[in-house]
Amino acid sequence: MAAPSVAVDNLNPKVLKCEYAVRGEIVIHAQRLQQQLQTQPGSLPFDEILYCNIGNPQSLGQQPVTFFREVLALCDYPCLLEREETKSLFSADAISRATTILASIPGRATGAYSHSQGIKGLRDAIAAGIALRDGYPANADDIFLTDGASPGVHMMMQLLIRNEKDGILCPIPQYPLYSASIALHGGALVPYYLNESTGWGLEISDLKKQLEDARSKGIDVRALVAINPGNPTGQVLGEENQRDIVKFCKNEGLVLLADEVYQENIYVDNKEFNSFKKIARSMGYNEDDLPLVSFQSVSKGYYGECGKRGGYMEITGFSAPVREQIYKVASVNLCSNITGQILASLVMNPPKAGDASYASYKAEKDGILQSLARRAKALEDAFNNLEGITCNKAEGAMYLFPQICLPQKVIEAAKAANKAPDAFYALRLLESTGVVVVPGSGFGQVPGTWHIRCTILPQEEKIPAIISRFKAFHEAFMAAYRD
Amino acid sequence: MAAPSVAVDNLNPKVLKCEYAVRGEIVIHAQRLQQQLQTQPGSLPFDEILYCNIGNPQSLGQQPVTFFREVLALCDYPCLLEREETKSLFSADAISRATTILASIPGRATGAYSHSQGIKGLRDAIAAGIALRDGYPANADDIFLTDGASPGVHMMMQLLIRNEKDGILCPIPQYPLYSASIALHGGALVPYYLNESTGWGLEISDLKKQLEDARSKGIDVRALVAINPGNPTGQVLGEENQRDIVKFCKNEGLVLLADEVYQENIYVDNKEFNSFKKIARSMGYNEDDLPLVSFQSVSKGYYGECGKRGGYMEITGFSAPVREQIYKVASVNLCSNITGQILASLVMNPPKAGDASYASYKAEKDGILQSLARRAKALEDAFNNLEGITCNKAEGAMYLFPQICLPQKVIEAAKAANKAPDAFYALRLLESTGVVVVPGSGFGQVPGTWHIRCTILPQEEKIPAIISRFKAFHEAFMAAYRD
Repeated sequence: MAAPSVAVDNLNPKVLKCEYAVRGEIVIHAQRLQQQLQTQPGSLPFDEILYCNIGNPQSLGQQPVTFFREVLALCDYPCLLEREETKSLFSADAISRATTILASIPGRATGAYSHSQGIKGLRDAIAAGIALRDGYPANADDIFLTDGASPGVHMMMQLLIRNEKDGILCPIPQYPLYSASIALHGGALVPYYLNESTGWGLEISDLKKQLEDARSKGIDVRALVAINPGNPTGQVLGEENQRDIVKFCKNEGLVLLADEVYQENIYVDNKEFNSFKKIARSMGYNEDDLPLVSFQSVSKGYYGECGKRGGYMEITGFSAPVREQIYKVASVNLCSNITGQILASLVMNPPKAGDASYASYKAEKDGILQSLARRAKALEDAFNNLEGITCNKAEGAMYLFPQICLPQKVIEAAKAANKAPDAFYALRLLESTGVVVVPGSGFGQVPGTWHIRCTILPQEEKIPAIISRFKAFHEAFMAAYRD
Repeated sequence: MAAPSVAVDNLNPKVLKCEYAVRGEIVIHAQRLQQQLQTQPGSLPFDEILYCNIGNPQSLGQQPVTFFREVLALCDYPCLLEREETKSLFSADAISRATTILASIPGRATGAYSHSQGIKGLRDAIAAGIALRDGYPANADDIFLTDGASPGVHMMMQLLIRNEKDGILCPIPQYPLYSASIALHGGALVPYYLNESTGWGLEISDLKKQLEDARSKGIDVRALVAINPGNPTGQVLGEENQRDIVKFCKNEGLVLLADEVYQENIYVDNKEFNSFKKIARSMGYNEDDLPLVSFQSVSKGYYGECGKRGGYMEITGFSAPVREQIYKVASVNLCSNITGQILASLVMNPPKAGDASYASYKAEKDGILQSLARRAKALEDAFNNLEGITCNKAEGAMYLFPQICLPQKVIEAAKAANKAPDAFYALRLLESTGVVVVPGSGFGQVPGTWHIRCTILPQEEKIPAIISRFKAFHEAFMAAYRD
């Protein structure tokens, strides 16, 4: 008998290198504990697992937006449109929207592969939504519909990374999709640090320094990733800062990869979302000045439709031959799922004042966003009231990323357990409270600092209990390990 | 000003190398002609484009199976289950199935990311469907739900291919997802030829020869791709042949990648589908003997739900540490779309005798499959009646792959036009008739032979017109180029 033909030591080393902490060790441990709760109720010091590790609102009880689901159901089963009962079951604008969408799909076939960029009529609708948002034109030919934002990110990394000497500038901390995707495609992650003390500000001087440093090592830096609103950091970039980033990318010949999936999630009055494309156009930069990709997803926003895997990338500033290559890669997977495509067109064109659903839609949307803002504030205040924890405001997105000043004894205990200190902390938190967070080491952080990422997504009525469980755990933990 | 930072000559060369003829040059040309038909009706010698290039049944008028769509609509908008009118709009078993499915989803949240392998309850249902099909047990932990079969294939290639010295045995002709995926991941395609003269038989002697030849060149052959029923070739493998393939993979230490997406598409009475897992288990081989991956999709079968992007891979015979790596790669993209997940569970567990929908479901299913069989036969006969064309039977799948003996003058004219001779033929066919087929050179073929792949999917009432247009074109083409 031969040795096993497939073993870890003969797998693609890029796969082995890739890490994705959001669904990593701690989450797998949480799933085991959840099973234990089912098979042996009462065997743990808590009665449910609270997944604060991932931006997955509907898994924690958030209800889908009614209008969106009405339209999806009608598109899935169009016979309903011919039945009288449908008028009493569905809102009038959902019926008319589904009718319009079906008319825009060749043969009304929601079960057919579409054009590899997505159904043209839906891309037209998305382009119109972008134009309305930005005040600058958008073109359906620039839209590539994708199964969530992740496949779009992979596609761009696959296109740009030739070998380990091709680098991508990424914020640290960053959403580990970026580090994972760069590892899978065999490139170099070139870090730039967000400044925690200025609310996770992005400093051009640091960008320049990191770029020059990478270049001096022979790295061909090809693109810069900017995540706005920030993940895991929650900051909303100011316009001036965005202009500097755009200018920097133009001057340095970098592709700007703009992760804008949290564009609807803003919780403070003094900030608003501006797309990088709007900023670039407002500076007078056109397609020739800057290759720019904006990623959007139906998973985030107030709708949080993660399971539908819809999203798009808007690609501007690439030459026709490069676009042909992007199209070719998209075509190998045929197309993204049509339900997700329809939903992407809906979130970019929700009901408007005057539509039958508008009042109920707006109440649902405002209710979710206002509640998220309250939850963010309550958790932020709670973190800041604990010994050794400092937490910036979540201006946007779905996360808090508090820094935890861990005593030396924790560092040593973690070392003995062969864990990063923040992973050690997060594991203890899980085992004491059932609350699942992701250690900061999964996102990157300034060496010697320790963080956790905690979503703001548990339902509002559960927040006080989470806070008190967290507080009790933290106090006991610090008491046990205080230097 | 710097040179453009992104140009074709500085893209990932693996992307440049990848080709995907099913949506390649001829299809892009067809899309242009379709636009011309809209803007200048009457300007072409035909009034519609007939896409016979791709297995996309619903794009050509096939209607979705009612039961599946009823369940999807109810899962998208579960409020319907609480309304009285729903009972008159939906079948009773669709209502009870949707209820069961929703109960199996944590929090009934069809808008939440699921476990990265897919919702456990749906995987249980799929495993039960596989066990019923094969007569051997299947395990939900072995199922990875995917957005169609393609992402599963990419995942396995990404795992297995380390560099250009890692080879994958692929049938020639093959579905170009395999060649494209191997190119994108930088491996070597090791061809084995299907024998056209024996109805696209797979000969173990050729497999052995190609394997040894590759090994002598220093290629580490890691896996064998078998497509059954065949794409583009339409043959259904016999059990004896499958046993030989299984034995060969076991003896040579190869992963068997079994593309079984056409398992429901069988059109001849003397053949039936047997999964490679069933064959392996019937030989007494268990998990330890053979790493085996079976790919399935909701895009094919009688349902043809391409746009839903659902599918799964069943993975057996891999060690726990290797499976952890597969899980990790799956987790980077979080999960496949839930609509596709639900649909995958439905196609593996359709209505059964006694269910309210059973009679209408069976009528829809049988109607589609019987019509496909008639269309396959009509097209096969038509091809075989044309000068210089020989066409094997489509025993299964959705394609015919006739060989066209092209006169020397065509070879020369094609050379002058810088095209492969079969691409030259397919382009002329498109421009004369509006029928889109894919040249055999996109799939691979014995050097010096020329083929086209033509789907059997246009609606039955259109087949006679297609045949007469094809016949008129072919006769004129041969008359113009006869040596």
